[in-house]
Amino acid sequence: MTFSERLYEKVKPIWEKNHNHPFVQEMGKGTLDKDKFRYFMIQDYLYLIEYAKLFAIGAVKATDVKTMGEFAKMLDTTLNTEMALHRQYAKKFNISEEELEQAKPAAVTVSYTHYMLAVGQNGGLAELVASLLPCMWSYAEIGKSLQQIPGASEHEFYGEWISMYADDEFQELAQWTINLLDQLTEEKPEHELRHLEEMFLTTTRFEYMFWDMAYHEEVWPV
Amino acid sequence: MTFSERLYEKVKPIWEKNHNHPFVQEMGKGTLDKDKFRYFMIQDYLYLIEYAKLFAIGAVKATDVKTMGEFAKMLDTTLNTEMALHRQYAKKFNISEEELEQAKPAAVTVSYTHYMLAVGQNGGLAELVASLLPCMWSYAEIGKSLQQIPGASEHEFYGEWISMYADDEFQELAQWTINLLDQLTEEKPEHELRHLEEMFLTTTRFEYMFWDMAYHEEVWPV
Amino acid sequence: MTFSERLYEKVKPIWEKNHNHPFVQEMGKGTLDKDKFRYFMIQDYLYLIEYAKLFAIGAVKATDVKTMGEFAKMLDTTLNTEMALHRQYAKKFNISEEELEQAKPAAVTVSYTHYMLAVGQNGGLAELVASLLPCMWSYAEIGKSLQQIPGASEHEFYGEWISMYADDEFQELAQWTINLLDQLTEEKPEHELRHLEEMFLTTTRFEYMFWDMAYHEEVWPV
Amino acid sequence: MTFSERLYEKVKPIWEKNHNHPFVQEMGKGTLDKDKFRYFMIQDYLYLIEYAKLFAIGAVKATDVKTMGEFAKMLDTTLNTEMALHRQYAKKFNISEEELEQAKPAAVTVSYTHYMLAVGQNGGLAELVASLLPCMWSYAEIGKSLQQIPGASEHEFYGEWISMYADDEFQELAQWTINLLDQLTEEKPEHELRHLEEMFLTTTRFEYMFWDMAYHEEVWPV
Repeated sequence: MTFSERLYEKVKPIWEKNHNHPFVQEMGKGTLDKDKFRYFMIQDYLYLIEYAKLFAIGAVKATDVKTMGEFAKMLDTTLNTEMALHRQYAKKFNISEEELEQAKPAAVTVSYTHYMLAVGQNGGLAELVASLLPCMWSYAEIGKSLQQIPGASEHEFYGEWISMYADDEFQELAQWTINLLDQLTEEKPEHELRHLEEMFLTTTRFEYMFWDMAYHEEVWPV
Repeated sequence: MTFSERLYEKVKPIWEKNHNHPFVQEMGKGTLDKDKFRYFMIQDYLYLIEYAKLFAIGAVKATDVKTMGEFAKMLDTTLNTEMALHRQYAKKFNISEEELEQAKPAAVTVSYTHYMLAVGQNGGLAELVASLLPCMWSYAEIGKSLQQIPGASEHEFYGEWISMYADDEFQELAQWTINLLDQLTEEKPEHELRHLEEMFLTTTRFEYMFWDMAYHEEVWPV
Repeated sequence: MTFSERLYEKVKPIWEKNHNHPFVQEMGKGTLDKDKFRYFMIQDYLYLIEYAKLFAIGAVKATDVKTMGEFAKMLDTTLNTEMALHRQYAKKFNISEEELEQAKPAAVTVSYTHYMLAVGQNGGLAELVASLLPCMWSYAEIGKSLQQIPGASEHEFYGEWISMYADDEFQELAQWTINLLDQLTEEKPEHELRHLEEMFLTTTRFEYMFWDMAYHEEVWPV
Repeated sequence: MTFSERLYEKVKPIWEKNHNHPFVQEMGKGTLDKDKFRYFMIQDYLYLIEYAKLFAIGAVKATDVKTMGEFAKMLDTTLNTEMALHRQYAKKFNISEEELEQAKPAAVTVSYTHYMLAVGQNGGLAELVASLLPCMWSYAEIGKSLQQIPGASEHEFYGEWISMYADDEFQELAQWTINLLDQLTEEKPEHELRHLEEMFLTTTRFEYMFWDMAYHEEVWPV
């Protein structure tokens, strides 16, 4: 069993709750309240800015030029291509660039991103990858799975989102990251693997909380 | 107006909600459910381990030997004295050392501590201090204020907590940290100050969420 | 006077020694011993791997998406375009990819790069930029100045190097970085500026030591 | 063979050159030029400030409270006890506190300390410990070995230095650090061990360069 398979087994019940979250399900059926998605888009945009920094940290922590180069490409693509697409897509929901720029992260957005940043800065490359993987991996699975719902990827509002993550390019990116973690953890002692499991579990939980935050359009309690 | 006064003004409404939180109020009155405090003690212990790391980062970021030395003392005292006191105090609530060691942080504990760690590692000393200050400052105020309630600091269960934070030594520590931030921010440009304000606001909010988490003995949603 | 002008004034005598270093002068005249340049190419390749990481750290430390995006582009270009050019150019000196991959950094290469990495990770964006700037700025100047020597940029071995750094694209990159530092330091208090000056001075000195190391093909003393 | 034994074997020829360096030998014989030692004291004081930061980073990277506590104690002792002893000892050589405070690090001091800081911040705890160990370990050995020279530890000027590092407390500290590295590297895959070896080798070399710098009272070349 590869380490990624072990991780998957470990968090499966939560993983399934993520997939079955009403936000995800209703996106697939096309019945999701547009306001909830609007809220999601804004928070997701803020999330992505911090998530991109994890790729930058990956380039710093990597110990070979090839892996550095991959992270560099991911960072550049995220900041200089994907975020422009997000800004474009956001217009469909009447979210202007000004609104995106002035938006403030909600509690779960801050918590989730800064957990990964703290872990990524403090640990080695394996810790970084273990913590950033659930987002990428579960989006790849969700994209793929929603795409199979007839009409879902042609939906006026949510089709674009589904296609983006079902896309081969994104699927390959997720697979590359899974493979990297498997390679980084080969022969690592058990106590280090358990430590990595803990991180993977934590961000899998944050994934759920992020969907839930969006579904309830959460604001800071104070 | 010093920068710390400006910060205080900025977050006052939240600050007051922290002080008025039922958890805090009921500690003062001595009516707090012991199970809620038990839960709090465990999470606070886990919090303290991460909080101590901020003092270590402070020693790395400081640019003069005197400030480094102060952070070193705070780190050493926290880990080698205070945490032993916490373990001792915990016994009153039938929390064994094993239970403390095996306890897992709840969502707010993880979020709050890793926010500070991420900010502390990524920024300069001012960012670190702005983010760690609300905890210290509000505990100093709460300790002082609850101490004035007749009998509160002699309460069988909560008196020790109140005395610890009302104590002169802790008050001086909080004041030293406030002064440090004022000194670090002297003449800083306005846009940097606004950035620091944002951090102080965020951890003031996390303070409220921490009391609330303890009051409701929150567990991870998944 | 902008801060970059102030820095330039401060280190001018060393700056001029860099320009007048026999390694640089002989490159311009085309008389440089090929073995010295061969040594330089290998160490410079190793240097570049670490230097690229500074751009990654820049993307993490930046506080706006635009600056993040610029650093992302610099990182990606360095790793996925420039380094391939270096590998290509190296073949002219019979340096195979294997030799590049197995090469070990000399003492000055390790010292210079790790100084910048330590400063970059520990400080804010201004510290990072102040420490990485002398390399970029002085290469831009040296490229421009050597290009004016008749025939220099057509030299069989060194012409390519001169053209690369005299090129408009590189000149603009250096200018962008200078402007960024000026913008980051606007209104900063004097004691912080003096701290940045110290860093700029240190890496200006390391620049000299790097030329000198290459000219003498230095090996570790033990 | 423990990992520390493997490291020792690996760098033995350099290690012996460190012990046999004229600076060390002449300290033992009591014939060392006082000006060379004066220079050493100042640079060593500046070195120690940065070295202390490595203990702080150790407290951040440690994954259990006990190890955190040890690093906290080392940091506190270094900054709040040892450095005062150094300032006291320095007076014997007419080095005032002002001179210490205003002194600037020489090239090797900057290079050596920032190498460890960069490695310590970027890697895990094992990387940090592998890079800081040669200093501690070789001082423990040198102290012990010079102490056996009759009269050496009573020498008016160098006796105090020898006694400090031959002292049981320092010997135990070095042994604790060696044991920590052995424990951290248990079952680590071979490619990670080779990476750590590289770091240990690099700082062993910097140790030699530090003695050499002091013996020649080196100044920056520009």
